[in-house]
Amino acid sequence: MSDRRFVIGLDFGTESGRAVLVDVANGAEVATDVYQYADGVIDRKLPGGKKLPPDWALQNPNDYLETVRRTIPAVLSTFGVTADQVIGVSIDFTACTMLPTDSAGQPLCFAPRWRANPHAWVKLWKHHAAQPEADKINETARRRGESWPQRYGDKYSSEWFFSKVWQILDEAPEVYQAADRMIEAADWIIWQLTGQETRNLCTAGYKAMHDTRAGFVSNDFLGALDPRLADVIDRKMMRGLSPLGACAGGLTEEMAKATGLRPGTAVAVGNVDAHAAVPAAGIAGPGKMLMIMGTSICHMLLGTEKKPVAGMCGVVEDGILPSFFGYEAGQSGAGDILAWFVRTFYPKAGVRIHSTLEKQAAKLRPGESGLVALDWWNGNRSVLVDTTLSGMLLGATLDTTPVEIYRAMIESIAFGTRTIVENFEKYGIAVNELYACGGMAEKNPLLMQIFSDVTGRPIKLARSSQSSALGAAMFGAVAAGAARGGYTTIYEAIPRMGGTKNKVYHPNAKNHKIYTLLFNEYTTLHDYFGRGANDAMKRLRTMKSQTRAPQS
Amino acid sequence: MSDRRFVIGLDFGTESGRAVLVDVANGAEVATDVYQYADGVIDRKLPGGKKLPPDWALQNPNDYLETVRRTIPAVLSTFGVTADQVIGVSIDFTACTMLPTDSAGQPLCFAPRWRANPHAWVKLWKHHAAQPEADKINETARRRGESWPQRYGDKYSSEWFFSKVWQILDEAPEVYQAADRMIEAADWIIWQLTGQETRNLCTAGYKAMHDTRAGFVSNDFLGALDPRLADVIDRKMMRGLSPLGACAGGLTEEMAKATGLRPGTAVAVGNVDAHAAVPAAGIAGPGKMLMIMGTSICHMLLGTEKKPVAGMCGVVEDGILPSFFGYEAGQSGAGDILAWFVRTFYPKAGVRIHSTLEKQAAKLRPGESGLVALDWWNGNRSVLVDTTLSGMLLGATLDTTPVEIYRAMIESIAFGTRTIVENFEKYGIAVNELYACGGMAEKNPLLMQIFSDVTGRPIKLARSSQSSALGAAMFGAVAAGAARGGYTTIYEAIPRMGGTKNKVYHPNAKNHKIYTLLFNEYTTLHDYFGRGANDAMKRLRTMKSQTRAPQS
Repeated sequence: MSDRRFVIGLDFGTESGRAVLVDVANGAEVATDVYQYADGVIDRKLPGGKKLPPDWALQNPNDYLETVRRTIPAVLSTFGVTADQVIGVSIDFTACTMLPTDSAGQPLCFAPRWRANPHAWVKLWKHHAAQPEADKINETARRRGESWPQRYGDKYSSEWFFSKVWQILDEAPEVYQAADRMIEAADWIIWQLTGQETRNLCTAGYKAMHDTRAGFVSNDFLGALDPRLADVIDRKMMRGLSPLGACAGGLTEEMAKATGLRPGTAVAVGNVDAHAAVPAAGIAGPGKMLMIMGTSICHMLLGTEKKPVAGMCGVVEDGILPSFFGYEAGQSGAGDILAWFVRTFYPKAGVRIHSTLEKQAAKLRPGESGLVALDWWNGNRSVLVDTTLSGMLLGATLDTTPVEIYRAMIESIAFGTRTIVENFEKYGIAVNELYACGGMAEKNPLLMQIFSDVTGRPIKLARSSQSSALGAAMFGAVAAGAARGGYTTIYEAIPRMGGTKNKVYHPNAKNHKIYTLLFNEYTTLHDYFGRGANDAMKRLRTMKSQTRAPQS
Repeated sequence: MSDRRFVIGLDFGTESGRAVLVDVANGAEVATDVYQYADGVIDRKLPGGKKLPPDWALQNPNDYLETVRRTIPAVLSTFGVTADQVIGVSIDFTACTMLPTDSAGQPLCFAPRWRANPHAWVKLWKHHAAQPEADKINETARRRGESWPQRYGDKYSSEWFFSKVWQILDEAPEVYQAADRMIEAADWIIWQLTGQETRNLCTAGYKAMHDTRAGFVSNDFLGALDPRLADVIDRKMMRGLSPLGACAGGLTEEMAKATGLRPGTAVAVGNVDAHAAVPAAGIAGPGKMLMIMGTSICHMLLGTEKKPVAGMCGVVEDGILPSFFGYEAGQSGAGDILAWFVRTFYPKAGVRIHSTLEKQAAKLRPGESGLVALDWWNGNRSVLVDTTLSGMLLGATLDTTPVEIYRAMIESIAFGTRTIVENFEKYGIAVNELYACGGMAEKNPLLMQIFSDVTGRPIKLARSSQSSALGAAMFGAVAAGAARGGYTTIYEAIPRMGGTKNKVYHPNAKNHKIYTLLFNEYTTLHDYFGRGANDAMKRLRTMKSQTRAPQS
């Protein structure tokens, strides 16, 4: 026992944070502890403070610190390992989740002076109130003929770093002024663990207009947005970025005391949840697309070249694994669409209704319902990048059953993934196999079979049910290095610590053929409603928001 | 009391038949009795016999006789009138509902020899298994450049007379051969009441290719369908037709004994349920469209000229009221779409859920849901005449509620009616006011208000909740004639016996404006999916039926 070496992966999610204690030799997850954030998602009113406008989503950075303080000691004691046996700590985080701090890294919202100002808090990834800034960023980039938007599928999101920074400047210049640092929460928590500020390449690449070779977007462009933004990178950010798996520093005395780990324990630089899951699934090269399947779906894929794939979320060299271009795409609705269905059709049923519905839906054959849906209940991320699109169901008759609708919705989500797969291939990035992780992948066998049948590709399941945390731990082993019992590179860690389950979903050729016919219908509707031939969804959404707005 | 004169209206519906005893002087409905058909709709297997294929819908003519035998004595005794006080009897029937009989009018299905043959039974209006014959009729008419289809919105339905007759010939030539008469049930029951065969102008015009001036379609055309059909009119039907309100004869001794009425009581010629409702609503001229609102909606309208309105169900001179062209259009889904919604979303709720949903839906404003639907759950009758179309819902988001969907479905049904109204006006037939009768009109105030707001027209409600039976009774008073205490023409009867309630729905101008925007969206989708730009609904339906068919 005492010769076993461990790493800790810390996963900072939307509602909770978790620590996973992992055996460096084989990736075994020997202990897990979860901390439910006390303030959770702050989207209605500030703790003890004022009401927030719609589309806001904040967090309290203290919840991140509490995660560290509570979960690390818990996993150590649960499994009974000594501090000496833990050679590294690493994290993964939601992104872009960012906050303003003072020069010492103290969040502005911790200071009594700023506490009542919502802009002083953490802006969570799903904070959507910076849409006006995102629109102006895209418009300005188009006008100036900037090339960087190609790396983001030609659209910079309201969820991302400069949209959020600029919203602070627009709406609370005093907060912007007071903020010495504007920083990703992923990098901020590493600062808290190590006592020194670092910035990781991954979030900078995917969220903050950074290119691994060319560096950040020009100050000139930022100044064109707002002259006060021209120096934001130099004054409030950092140009020197650390690659994934690099050691950000050693654990501070204070943090060692709080966690029970040894001072100086290696801490890896920050990482993103979806990205960290890729090595955990055993993926070490191109052609294998990982789907992180939950409320929404993230699609992660490695390529050997940088291609301007339309409608993807981003491509970053070394952004997922070193030496590859890391591509990210996504579907903004997935599990949440099925949750909507259950909430709407079975308001009194518990979550177990999903498996009941799955069993009934599994008895249906492809095409039998005569239904086809567009999976845009929460808008469309890839490949249309349009939050104003909405859901559609077509083909209903008087004998249509709820189970048929449920299955049609699953199929529509699979069609959305097939659209992403075919879009990658159209741009020359191969997708030969699918990998999946996340709650939906583990709990919904029918859904997984339909994904396989629709895409015509085998699907493997990541071995771990907490892939992001495991992936983080793997980078922790790399940060610790071989000398301390870890690994020299992530590629050494992958075959030992990552991997898949035995269960593989294989496509049924007959179903695939029928689904291709249905997918053709989906594609026609997708393009008709999504590419401008009929903007009914946008007009209806405008009408909806105008009708709901206070009447003058 | 003893100087009051009464007429009896017999209404033969889909599930039951009813008698209404009506005061000739003022149209007061003094007694009603309903007989639930013992065999109801026969759509799964013949009574005591074999299984029926899909799309079949038969009835047992004995249920019609039982209606006469049971309900007439019941209304007489309930109100305590003497046989002398009842001056006339008249009926209305579903159509085209037809049957083969022997030369004496005995239904073939009553004969032991034919009892086990489903083609010997009554083919109910919603028997849809004659689609191949309807297709061949339309194709042949197109090929020969026939002009008669113009009177049917250019499409002859599988529900209608010659489609059904031809199906008998195609599938059971021995039944066709044995049938001396092929007759509408409306005319058959009159035959049973009077002992003599008559045929009414209305069903012949709307269902059997008859024109009030030009007569029936040519034998040549029928022979082109199948040489054996060339003489069907002359050998198994009747060329001499009786106008609505004409006296078909007097009640037979046998029927008088069975009902308690006097032998010789005037019996009017057969009529159709929707058509009979027009005078009952007090309509005596053009510009007032009556909607008979239930499972589906029939739209009845009088015009002064014959115009070839695309997509209507039919136009017949004198077909509703004498001296006018009677136009009929329809929506194949209405109440049944809302019933589907409740069955699907609230499987355990009773029918009272409709009024709960209405109350909640009434709190929403037009446009607030961001939803728009196509009301084609049961196909589209007018103006597209396409049973292969299906329902669609667009605009759903994660905050969409069932109540919003319910309201969107109501709105879509109203949009369907507005499409019909605008189509009539496009062809020069004015629609100034709407009238409504039927269960949905009486029970769904929100729906009625939405219909008024969407169409921008006031809506009056027929006074009677059994308008068809009342209208039938009114024609019975005409058949009896003034000398016996009735009326000389239906126009004398209308102001006295028909009419509307005090409640009128007036359009809200602001809502009408918003609904016009939504109606534009509806129309774009209506034309896109309904007029050939995207035949997804047809392809999905084909896929559905192929998938459901037994696998080879």
